[in-house]
Amino acid sequence: MKIDINSDMGEGFGPYTLADDEALMAQISSANVACGYHAGDPLIMDRTVGLAKDHGVDLGAHVSFPDRMGFGRRKMDIPLPELEAHVLYQIGALAAFASRAGHRITHMNPHGALGNLASADPAIAEAVAKATMAFDPEIAFLVLPGSALETAALERGGKVVRLFLADRGYLPNGQLAPRGEPGAVIKDEAEVVARVMGVLRDQKLTCVTGEVIAMPVQSVLVHSDTPGAVALAQRLRHDITANGGHITPLTAQHTS
Amino acid sequence: MKIDINSDMGEGFGPYTLADDEALMAQISSANVACGYHAGDPLIMDRTVGLAKDHGVDLGAHVSFPDRMGFGRRKMDIPLPELEAHVLYQIGALAAFASRAGHRITHMNPHGALGNLASADPAIAEAVAKATMAFDPEIAFLVLPGSALETAALERGGKVVRLFLADRGYLPNGQLAPRGEPGAVIKDEAEVVARVMGVLRDQKLTCVTGEVIAMPVQSVLVHSDTPGAVALAQRLRHDITANGGHITPLTAQHTS
Amino acid sequence: MKIDINSDMGEGFGPYTLADDEALMAQISSANVACGYHAGDPLIMDRTVGLAKDHGVDLGAHVSFPDRMGFGRRKMDIPLPELEAHVLYQIGALAAFASRAGHRITHMNPHGALGNLASADPAIAEAVAKATMAFDPEIAFLVLPGSALETAALERGGKVVRLFLADRGYLPNGQLAPRGEPGAVIKDEAEVVARVMGVLRDQKLTCVTGEVIAMPVQSVLVHSDTPGAVALAQRLRHDITANGGHITPLTAQHTS
Amino acid sequence: MKIDINSDMGEGFGPYTLADDEALMAQISSANVACGYHAGDPLIMDRTVGLAKDHGVDLGAHVSFPDRMGFGRRKMDIPLPELEAHVLYQIGALAAFASRAGHRITHMNPHGALGNLASADPAIAEAVAKATMAFDPEIAFLVLPGSALETAALERGGKVVRLFLADRGYLPNGQLAPRGEPGAVIKDEAEVVARVMGVLRDQKLTCVTGEVIAMPVQSVLVHSDTPGAVALAQRLRHDITANGGHITPLTAQHTS
Repeated sequence: MKIDINSDMGEGFGPYTLADDEALMAQISSANVACGYHAGDPLIMDRTVGLAKDHGVDLGAHVSFPDRMGFGRRKMDIPLPELEAHVLYQIGALAAFASRAGHRITHMNPHGALGNLASADPAIAEAVAKATMAFDPEIAFLVLPGSALETAALERGGKVVRLFLADRGYLPNGQLAPRGEPGAVIKDEAEVVARVMGVLRDQKLTCVTGEVIAMPVQSVLVHSDTPGAVALAQRLRHDITANGGHITPLTAQHTS
Repeated sequence: MKIDINSDMGEGFGPYTLADDEALMAQISSANVACGYHAGDPLIMDRTVGLAKDHGVDLGAHVSFPDRMGFGRRKMDIPLPELEAHVLYQIGALAAFASRAGHRITHMNPHGALGNLASADPAIAEAVAKATMAFDPEIAFLVLPGSALETAALERGGKVVRLFLADRGYLPNGQLAPRGEPGAVIKDEAEVVARVMGVLRDQKLTCVTGEVIAMPVQSVLVHSDTPGAVALAQRLRHDITANGGHITPLTAQHTS
Repeated sequence: MKIDINSDMGEGFGPYTLADDEALMAQISSANVACGYHAGDPLIMDRTVGLAKDHGVDLGAHVSFPDRMGFGRRKMDIPLPELEAHVLYQIGALAAFASRAGHRITHMNPHGALGNLASADPAIAEAVAKATMAFDPEIAFLVLPGSALETAALERGGKVVRLFLADRGYLPNGQLAPRGEPGAVIKDEAEVVARVMGVLRDQKLTCVTGEVIAMPVQSVLVHSDTPGAVALAQRLRHDITANGGHITPLTAQHTS
Repeated sequence: MKIDINSDMGEGFGPYTLADDEALMAQISSANVACGYHAGDPLIMDRTVGLAKDHGVDLGAHVSFPDRMGFGRRKMDIPLPELEAHVLYQIGALAAFASRAGHRITHMNPHGALGNLASADPAIAEAVAKATMAFDPEIAFLVLPGSALETAALERGGKVVRLFLADRGYLPNGQLAPRGEPGAVIKDEAEVVARVMGVLRDQKLTCVTGEVIAMPVQSVLVHSDTPGAVALAQRLRHDITANGGHITPLTAQHTS
């Protein structure tokens, strides 16, 4: 019973801060670090990579569309060769800080609108997978089970780690229930923890319609920018360990 | 009698083009590629790295202050740790394209205002040298002889290649004559070529005051964005070869 | 027989230039000036407004999505209230230069992807019309006949000027034939001029299928960034005048 | 005994927030609104202008160098004509939101590094004053007494309002004591309030050396991004009113 706890890190910019990265880094096992497109800047990237290294936390590239004002949350119709170039640019930039810190990028996941598109659109998924694996074929993709990015990565012989969004309701087909629908977002900490423990134990989840679906995941996402993120991560860490589970970083979780 | 011919490449942006990189790449032996700060973007970086690889041209990172509108030509008071982070970010991003193309960054030189500061200010020079060598200590610095960057690189055990600006007048102390002064900029192609041939032969140059100074260089810069750049590079290449010289890329020119 | 000749102006950025604005400004009667989103910057806007003022050319705001690298040519899913704010921001910024130069914004047209959306999508068209008219209800909209923006403007009591793209083929429904299809782009200068003269005389056009459709326009667009733009504008100006027509700026062309 | 309380507003960006603008707007009489250069974006500008209008708060343009990552706090060597263009661009953009909201820009002050330069450097001060008054000569300049910007504005027949930084120590010459020196920053709320009351009563201040200097001000700045900003503004408002003073916006405070 091994599970990774990961979180999006380094999402400040210049004078701005979104989350208490320092406190959260002590609770998680893998970090998805913004690369200066939706958030982050060179100074923040450097500090965040250093924090990850110091805490023995796995390092991932959290790549995005080039849209700071929209925080990478809105679709842009970027041609595929340019999209590949944006992915390479961001991974390369983050890798430079990793290299200086004696750390290494071992996973990636696309953020926001790019993440949604890479889950749903095979062409976008392929561009993301191709650019990433051209840089380093050992980088694992942090994916939703059944997503286009999972398929694209596996078809190219890449590694994937499947992700559970602990505070989101799921549809019977394994997709997330759209925000706004009943049960789409779970705010109660105890319920979120109970869901994680259940998925860990059974690899199954009761979805918003009441049906039970398979949830074969190796990693749980804690949103860094919601109030109570540090407390939630602490409680998850405690309960998982108390129940005989092990928090292990992504590099111990690869599936191919 | 070996000399490198290098040029700044990839200085377009989005819909904009500054130079005929494709034609010039066939004439030079080393390229200094913009990294998306003063110019360039991921798509252009990718194309430029590919052109360099195809022509057997050495690849350098042409790093800058983050200032597209000013083309990196104006001083910004950026704190040294942030400056280091900007240098790392740019080199890392370019390295990703190099890696995918099977090429490698083997030199760097700072652009515009950052270049001027790194020549004159030991603290800036040290930040540039430190960040670069933390990424890869084999990357050579393309420097003006006697500059602060040359000193900073050599003090850290780095490699340097000394650069001659063929179309610029020099002062007796080896610095460039400021633009606007008589003889500061040489526009006649034949004269530029004659200066290069003289420096190649004697490692000496007559400066704007008439004095003869040492000019121990291994590389000549051809400005890519001046009219006649391609013709000048062709003529240099022809005349050097005809006089028994060899055009060799920067990696064959390192001095430590 | 009055017609306006207009062109997109001020589309350089920092060190970059796209067109010979100075030469073209002498041939046209109305200018659509980039506002720093897809192109242009404060210095270029200032110069372009000054050129327009000096040549007695009408001034329009050429507003865009915030996307310099993509030159405003790709769709971004920006929420409508934010889109309104972007339109206001750009018009206001341009108006400041107009005010200093003793000129005035008398028309607007959205650029690139925003222009396409405002032609086709009533909600986008309404956001553009609403924001513009909140700034100044006298600003005319430069529109394709039958477009959503024409409808949105007229419904709010706004002024419109209908535009003919002289070098583009049209479909029977009055829409542009998509680039790539036969007849979609006309490159021959004589043919372009002939089409303009025909439309001017008859307010009709033969579309790509051979059908004749109504083309009730008051303005002709000359693309500033195509080779031969200045020559084409000169010839149009000459032929229109020689045939008894009058080149008059947009403010003489309003329809409500 | 009239005094204005002003604060920097609208300094968030995209997903980021720096201060509780809504609460603070209820306590102040004038707002300096970021214009999208060091902070702010069109959506935030629109909301902030609306808040100011709703609270009867005077509206000012808080213009800056184009440097989001550095929050406008670092010097950039921008040529004067370009600097004028940046000032116009920002004021014009803000004015568009003011116009739509039925509000009006009645003051301006430069932010951060541009503010420091405009206080100390007559050429920069003149560029700022010139661009602003070309847009609207009625816009008052919010200045430090004795600054270059005060001089530049008065020489051109402009209006000025003199500003007191309540939480900063002063030197005998009327300049701010540099941060880091003893007494340079006062953090105790009671002491800050006492200083304001003293300056209001006597138009004099005891500076860091113990000397008493003239402090002929009409406005007090409350920093919006420090903890306790709202409480401090509330207490200032209460104590001033309780002592027979009147909080009046900048437009009631002009000096020429």
